[in-house]
Amino acid sequence: MIEQTDAGEIRTLTLARSPVNALNRELLAQLGLALQNAERDGVRGVILTGSGGCFSAGLDIGELLSLDTAGLTDFLTEFMHCLLRLSLAPMPIVAALNGHAPAGGAVLSLYCDRRIMVSGRARMGLNEVAVGLYPGPLILRLLERTVGARLAAELLMTGALLEPEAARHVGLVDELTTSAQLPSTATSWLQRVLALPAAAFAATRALVRQDLVHATQGALDADLAVMVAAWESTATRECLLRLLESTGTRPALH
Amino acid sequence: MIEQTDAGEIRTLTLARSPVNALNRELLAQLGLALQNAERDGVRGVILTGSGGCFSAGLDIGELLSLDTAGLTDFLTEFMHCLLRLSLAPMPIVAALNGHAPAGGAVLSLYCDRRIMVSGRARMGLNEVAVGLYPGPLILRLLERTVGARLAAELLMTGALLEPEAARHVGLVDELTTSAQLPSTATSWLQRVLALPAAAFAATRALVRQDLVHATQGALDADLAVMVAAWESTATRECLLRLLESTGTRPALH
Amino acid sequence: MIEQTDAGEIRTLTLARSPVNALNRELLAQLGLALQNAERDGVRGVILTGSGGCFSAGLDIGELLSLDTAGLTDFLTEFMHCLLRLSLAPMPIVAALNGHAPAGGAVLSLYCDRRIMVSGRARMGLNEVAVGLYPGPLILRLLERTVGARLAAELLMTGALLEPEAARHVGLVDELTTSAQLPSTATSWLQRVLALPAAAFAATRALVRQDLVHATQGALDADLAVMVAAWESTATRECLLRLLESTGTRPALH
Repeated sequence: MIEQTDAGEIRTLTLARSPVNALNRELLAQLGLALQNAERDGVRGVILTGSGGCFSAGLDIGELLSLDTAGLTDFLTEFMHCLLRLSLAPMPIVAALNGHAPAGGAVLSLYCDRRIMVSGRARMGLNEVAVGLYPGPLILRLLERTVGARLAAELLMTGALLEPEAARHVGLVDELTTSAQLPSTATSWLQRVLALPAAAFAATRALVRQDLVHATQGALDADLAVMVAAWESTATRECLLRLLESTGTRPALH
Repeated sequence: MIEQTDAGEIRTLTLARSPVNALNRELLAQLGLALQNAERDGVRGVILTGSGGCFSAGLDIGELLSLDTAGLTDFLTEFMHCLLRLSLAPMPIVAALNGHAPAGGAVLSLYCDRRIMVSGRARMGLNEVAVGLYPGPLILRLLERTVGARLAAELLMTGALLEPEAARHVGLVDELTTSAQLPSTATSWLQRVLALPAAAFAATRALVRQDLVHATQGALDADLAVMVAAWESTATRECLLRLLESTGTRPALH
Repeated sequence: MIEQTDAGEIRTLTLARSPVNALNRELLAQLGLALQNAERDGVRGVILTGSGGCFSAGLDIGELLSLDTAGLTDFLTEFMHCLLRLSLAPMPIVAALNGHAPAGGAVLSLYCDRRIMVSGRARMGLNEVAVGLYPGPLILRLLERTVGARLAAELLMTGALLEPEAARHVGLVDELTTSAQLPSTATSWLQRVLALPAAAFAATRALVRQDLVHATQGALDADLAVMVAAWESTATRECLLRLLESTGTRPALH
């Protein structure tokens, strides 16, 4: 579910779970493993991208709706561990947003050091509320550190999915480019920071990401029950089932 | 002192205390009551606006200068309770800034979920320092969550009153419109968020306003004595008396 | 090493240590003393600027590399005390950025109430990482309060030196002007805030700078050992020596 290609010291990890790279438990586990392997292999920079027209459509709603409490707890624990691993990765990671990145897809990208997005039709944002999901304190913290408190409140409360230019304007993405130039743009940024004195760069990068690590570790303990409860709420499940029915992918329910 | 009109599930509360909707104790009490009533009546969205050329000129300086310590304490407690009620309101509130909103008028609007302002001659800002008043930590927190720390410091320290376009540029207001379109613009935003799944919206809105509630509750305990002292300071009273004399509204002093 | 000129209640302090106003221990001590004297003399506003083509090139690397642990501790303690004095100065201070302000030069300016920079060839930024230095938590805090968390992380991690227009765009400087108009632009801003009611201005300014004072006092205790260790690291010293050799100013080493 994850394609891996190396160019020098930079490894590209491509989410490849057709059709929209929805994050099911297996893909999250593979992503965690791929990050571990990158560290073990001495990879110095990572590009995280998606195959097809999506970066990632977010958590796999169909799989989540089919789970009981124990299954939800396992799935969401896997998600949190994947985020923790992203926050702790020792090498810089660029999110190369090749396409749509709603909800959990956007969350993955907010754990990267830089977001580069393809101009055009793709949309990005934290639209949890629009599909009936409570986003929770960790996603608020992520958004606040990225765009400030006022815009975080507005984006989360309205569940806005932004066009690339609007996403860049508010700071949700750092840079826009074309599909053709996405790999080279991501590589250029990595090469620039990898040319800095290595020890000072590693220490400085750890410094500016300390809040991200702490927020994620805190959420692992505090938010898991809240997240499970959110996915078990009848109102949420009804919203998500309607969403799946409208796209013809109604799941087997537990 | 407050006009109330309903259109479907949306209620408009219009501050109507001629000539400038100055916030005296009675108006603050009525606003608190109107918010309680809106909740009791199951109103789903509120538009807060002003009559005449002002949204609100802020706290009623004449009334405040006429009060002794006990009276100041009562007045400012009423103000704080009104702010706390705004922070805790269960339905979204849009500030429709029909005209000037200095000091306490701006503070009211910063408790709303969105600020929409009429382009043109009106001014908005936290100009406490310019009239000799110490704004205190709560207003700093309000500003910081709205425009970030640097701009909050600059705006508070210089007491700037901003033109609508500048207010929008720094993020003090979210959107500009014309007088004629102010009600429909405010209504549109409310309708947009009220169309979201209700339980998820309510929980998300509570999440992004948690800091506002905590800051206000904290200030209720910690800042009241500071605020009373500020209004009792000789230097402040002299500034405010000069201001009132220049506008021909010198109060009876206690 | 510091020139001092008074115009009414405003005093200009000009860093004058040829060729680039590098901050050695003596200059830092003199700056601390000049701030004390300004307070003693009842100066109401200060303009901090540099002579020649630099505001300040930052800490004197040659002097620092020549010091042993005790010497480094003394030097960096002097630096921290100078920053603490800046944070506690009772009068507003404008940084008039006449030229380059990298690293420690930028840090000095971030302690001022406002940064006005000359358009053109000068560069400003926190480029510690680019010369092999770990900037530490205090500089991160300084940057976060000035430009927000996301930009602070990006600027610190990439060690970017910004052109004046880019620095203004992200909020690192507040205003651009020409060399000829730098003194009058700085003076105008000071005169504007000094025309505000004095007691309210002093209290409001202290309020908005409280976080700066606390961060600096905290760093005095917590960060000093980290800073000394950073300057003693072999990797850092090798970077800095190469830098000095490239500019033909290799120091006598301890």
